[in-house]
Amino acid sequence: MTTYGRVEFSEFHSESVGLIFKVEKILLSKKSKFQDLMVFETKSHGRVLTLDGLVMVTEKDEFIYHEMIAHVPLYSHPNPKKVLIIGGGDGGTAREVLRHKSIEQVDMVEIDEEVINASKEFLPTMSVAFKDSRLNLIIGDGVEFVKDKKDEYDVIIIDSTDPISIGEGLFTRKFYSDCKKALKEGGILVNQSESPFYDPKWVEGIYDKLNDIFKVVKSYTAFCPTYPAIWSFGYCLKDGGEVKFNEEAYKSDNLEFKYYNKDIHFASFSLPTFMKKIVYKGKEWENIMRVN
Amino acid sequence: MTTYGRVEFSEFHSESVGLIFKVEKILLSKKSKFQDLMVFETKSHGRVLTLDGLVMVTEKDEFIYHEMIAHVPLYSHPNPKKVLIIGGGDGGTAREVLRHKSIEQVDMVEIDEEVINASKEFLPTMSVAFKDSRLNLIIGDGVEFVKDKKDEYDVIIIDSTDPISIGEGLFTRKFYSDCKKALKEGGILVNQSESPFYDPKWVEGIYDKLNDIFKVVKSYTAFCPTYPAIWSFGYCLKDGGEVKFNEEAYKSDNLEFKYYNKDIHFASFSLPTFMKKIVYKGKEWENIMRVN
Repeated sequence: MTTYGRVEFSEFHSESVGLIFKVEKILLSKKSKFQDLMVFETKSHGRVLTLDGLVMVTEKDEFIYHEMIAHVPLYSHPNPKKVLIIGGGDGGTAREVLRHKSIEQVDMVEIDEEVINASKEFLPTMSVAFKDSRLNLIIGDGVEFVKDKKDEYDVIIIDSTDPISIGEGLFTRKFYSDCKKALKEGGILVNQSESPFYDPKWVEGIYDKLNDIFKVVKSYTAFCPTYPAIWSFGYCLKDGGEVKFNEEAYKSDNLEFKYYNKDIHFASFSLPTFMKKIVYKGKEWENIMRVN
Repeated sequence: MTTYGRVEFSEFHSESVGLIFKVEKILLSKKSKFQDLMVFETKSHGRVLTLDGLVMVTEKDEFIYHEMIAHVPLYSHPNPKKVLIIGGGDGGTAREVLRHKSIEQVDMVEIDEEVINASKEFLPTMSVAFKDSRLNLIIGDGVEFVKDKKDEYDVIIIDSTDPISIGEGLFTRKFYSDCKKALKEGGILVNQSESPFYDPKWVEGIYDKLNDIFKVVKSYTAFCPTYPAIWSFGYCLKDGGEVKFNEEAYKSDNLEFKYYNKDIHFASFSLPTFMKKIVYKGKEWENIMRVN
C-alpha cells in the first residue's frame, strides 16, 4: 500500500516563525502525570524528544546545550565534587557532568519518571548517564527537594522546561533562595534562562529574580540550532567574584568536546547589545558583564 | 467571504529540519533575469525577502547580520574611507557601512536590479541606504567589476547568496585573488561564509580557498535567528596581522547598535570546537584563532 500522508511537527517561537521537522516515525506519544511526551524519528536529526509540544533534545545537536550547561560552571569551580541537577530527565546534562574526574556524587531530581523511561528506551547516548554509580537519581519535585538542603553542593544546575506549567516553581525567588542556601561556600548555580530574542520578558523576569538573591549574576549564551535563536544561561556566584577557568582540571580531564572550549568558556559571556539591556538593565552593564 | 486556506513558507536547512513562516500576505512574487524573488508580510517578523526560496532578510532580525558583516571589519580598520560591497541588494549592509563618519565612498555592485527595486518598494528601513550621496550603485557582475581594480578599497564586503547558481562566482580562488588585488595596503575582506552546522562542506571549501589567497584568514560568528543555526563570516587581512579594534573611531561615531559592541567584536572570533575543526583544520587552530 502506498501512503500519501506525511507527518510534520512544527513549534512556533513567535506568532509567525517556527521550526519544522519532517517526521519519519512517531516512536512514543503519551500523556504522563505531568505533561505530553513525544519521541519521533527524523532523518537528519535522529530522535527528537518533545514535552508539551516543545523540542527538548535532538540527537544531532543536544551536545551543544548539554556541554554548555555543564562545563561552564564545572570548569569555573576550583574543585567540584558534589553536583545537584534539577530536571534534565533525558540524562544529557548528567552525562556531561559525570565526565569530570573530580565529581564524586550527582544528585539528580526529575519530577517526571516517564521522561527518564523514554530516554532509557529511545535516547541511549543520553541515558547512558543513568548507569553511572555516582548518579543518585531522585524522582520528585526539585522545589521540595532543595528546601531542607544546606551547604551541600558545589554546583547546582537547573535544567528545566519553560517557566509555565510544571516548570514554573523553578523560576521563583523562593526556589533560587533555597538553592543559594543549598550551595557550599564558593558555590555556583547555573540555569537555562530562555531565549532573549523570542522571549525577552521571560528572560528579564528570570534575571530580576536571580539578582535579588545572588551577589553576582551573569549570563552566557550558546547557539542551540533547535531552540529558538540564541539561548541564554544564568550564572550565579553564591559569594561573588569573577568567572574563572580551572586550567589544571581542564588539562587533567583532557576531554574531547564538540562545542565547548576555553575560548568559548569566556567568550560566551560577551552578550549582544539587545541582550545586555535585558539582562543588565538598571546596572552599569558595560562594566558589570566583563569577565576578565 | 471567509477564506479557509492559509499560506505557509518553509525553508529546510537539512533533510528534516527547517524554518516555517505563517504568511499574512504575498507582496511580491516574480522571476527576475537571475532568480525567483518573493516578499511576504508576517505578523511577528514584518516583511521577509526570499531569493530562490531562501530567506535573505526579515525586518525583525536583519540588524544582526547587517551590523555584524559591516562593523567588525570597519572597526578593525584604522581609517576606512572607501568600501566595496558585492551583492547586498536589499541595502542593509550599505546602510550600516554608511553610518561610519570616516566613509567617503561606497561602491556597491549588485547583479540583480530587481532586488534593489523590491527593497525600494517594500523594505524602507534597508533601502534608505540608496538615498545616501556617498553610495555609488553599480548594476552588474561583481566578478567582472573587481577584475581590473587595484589598491582601491580599504574594506571589501561580500554579501552574497549561497555558493550555488548566480552566487557561485563569488566563491572562487580567482575572485578572492582579484579582491585581494583590489584592496589597499592593510585592507580587509569580509564575506558571509555560510552555516558551519548545516553546511560544513560549503564552509570548509570557502576557508580552503580563502587560505590559499590571504595571509591571515579568521572566522567570526553571529546568531541570525532566521538563518540556519550559527552563521559564519570570513575575515581576511591582505597583509596579515591581528584583529584590532579602533576605539577612537568607535567613540567618535558614538553609534547605537542593537547587536554589535566592543565585547562582541572580539568574542565573535571565539569558535565552537566543531567549527574550529572545519575552519582551521590542518593548522594549529588552538593558537591561530586567538584574537588578542
